[in-house]
Amino acid sequence: MTISYDGTDYNGFQKQPRGITVQGELEKVIESLVRHPVTVYGSGRTDAGVHARTQVIHFRTDSPIPVERWALALNSRLPESIVIRDVQEAKLDFHARLSAKRKTYRYALNNSLYPDVFQRRYQWHISRKMDEDAMFKSAEHFLGTQEFTSFSSSRTATSNHIRTIYRSEWVREGDVLFYYVEGNGFLYNMVRILVGTMIHVGDGKIKEADIPEIIMSKNRKKAGPTAPAAGLTLWNVEY
Amino acid sequence: MTISYDGTDYNGFQKQPRGITVQGELEKVIESLVRHPVTVYGSGRTDAGVHARTQVIHFRTDSPIPVERWALALNSRLPESIVIRDVQEAKLDFHARLSAKRKTYRYALNNSLYPDVFQRRYQWHISRKMDEDAMFKSAEHFLGTQEFTSFSSSRTATSNHIRTIYRSEWVREGDVLFYYVEGNGFLYNMVRILVGTMIHVGDGKIKEADIPEIIMSKNRKKAGPTAPAAGLTLWNVEY
Repeated sequence: MTISYDGTDYNGFQKQPRGITVQGELEKVIESLVRHPVTVYGSGRTDAGVHARTQVIHFRTDSPIPVERWALALNSRLPESIVIRDVQEAKLDFHARLSAKRKTYRYALNNSLYPDVFQRRYQWHISRKMDEDAMFKSAEHFLGTQEFTSFSSSRTATSNHIRTIYRSEWVREGDVLFYYVEGNGFLYNMVRILVGTMIHVGDGKIKEADIPEIIMSKNRKKAGPTAPAAGLTLWNVEY
Repeated sequence: MTISYDGTDYNGFQKQPRGITVQGELEKVIESLVRHPVTVYGSGRTDAGVHARTQVIHFRTDSPIPVERWALALNSRLPESIVIRDVQEAKLDFHARLSAKRKTYRYALNNSLYPDVFQRRYQWHISRKMDEDAMFKSAEHFLGTQEFTSFSSSRTATSNHIRTIYRSEWVREGDVLFYYVEGNGFLYNMVRILVGTMIHVGDGKIKEADIPEIIMSKNRKKAGPTAPAAGLTLWNVEY
């Protein structure tokens, strides 16, 4: 299933001991339809407050409900902040996370004098003037296959910190700067730390030319802060 | 002052015995700055749940705070759903409502299969296919100087129901249909009833050619239902 959600009011995608989660809401509603226990797997675990334009999930069921009926049946039961957009029957070896080849995230930064009230849940608002050229250039350093230890939260569980980045680019649309990053995978908080580091470049606190050294240091403390969750959206998943 | 607000969580612009209102929040915050009682006047009273991209307000004060300081001072104290975008010192005879020459409203209708989770507070979602040609044509009948009694709530207090409409037009952007209506004034619920009537045309429940007769009837019961507040935004005010 391809789904979208507004992550503002969720404690992230993955089920937690406390707080409502996207996975938890999905399992509850799917179980009420199929009447057997269900585990929902997502292409990745978005953090608390992070959104998804395109998230892909899978689960197993022997329910006789025809594939074309699922979206309407689930949407009428789900909260308004989660929408099922497409449903397909998958092969039994399909796995939303393990089968994913590439993922794209988008980070939205509103760099105008005042925040946009209608986009405030989906943008980081910074009113000060920044060195946009340096910021835009700094994004290129993240391309290719590299070890991203400097840009991963200490809470990262995996030991392999090598990832391949295919696209790392800022695009300006009016007063809003969008950062698109496409890769074969991402470490915990990685996109938000990349953005926080590039904002430090824009503020002159980190030199654009020093980014390669920060990558090589494999030291989280050399990178910039973690940008707020609200600006981040899981944009696309490829299989 | 030119302000924007997300009306979702407000009981309308105008102060009410219960519920928080935009006027109430503004007066509270302005009074905390100027330390004297203040009455805030808006260009118009948007209903509960209706938004404003551009709303103009005025109030009187002898505060010595320089005009360029107001926006930042108020924005830091206001809830995130209200933003002050521009502040000017006005002549003493300026009145946000009485001096307004024209107002524009925009109504947003998402006509795709599934709602847009990120726009759900600002759009009416209708998934069924409608006769868009008839709907678009029906908008032209509202142009000019006419009596709009058929399109006003019975709660309208004013006795003069004659208004002049300068623009009445649907514009499609992707899956979203925007209805723009510009006039010298609007009756209570008027834009939402115009939209509800045109949706009835799109659904074949009312014939486009019958709209002039509905206008002439001066009978609210001949028009369509009142469209939901969420889709409506006060778009612009001219002086």
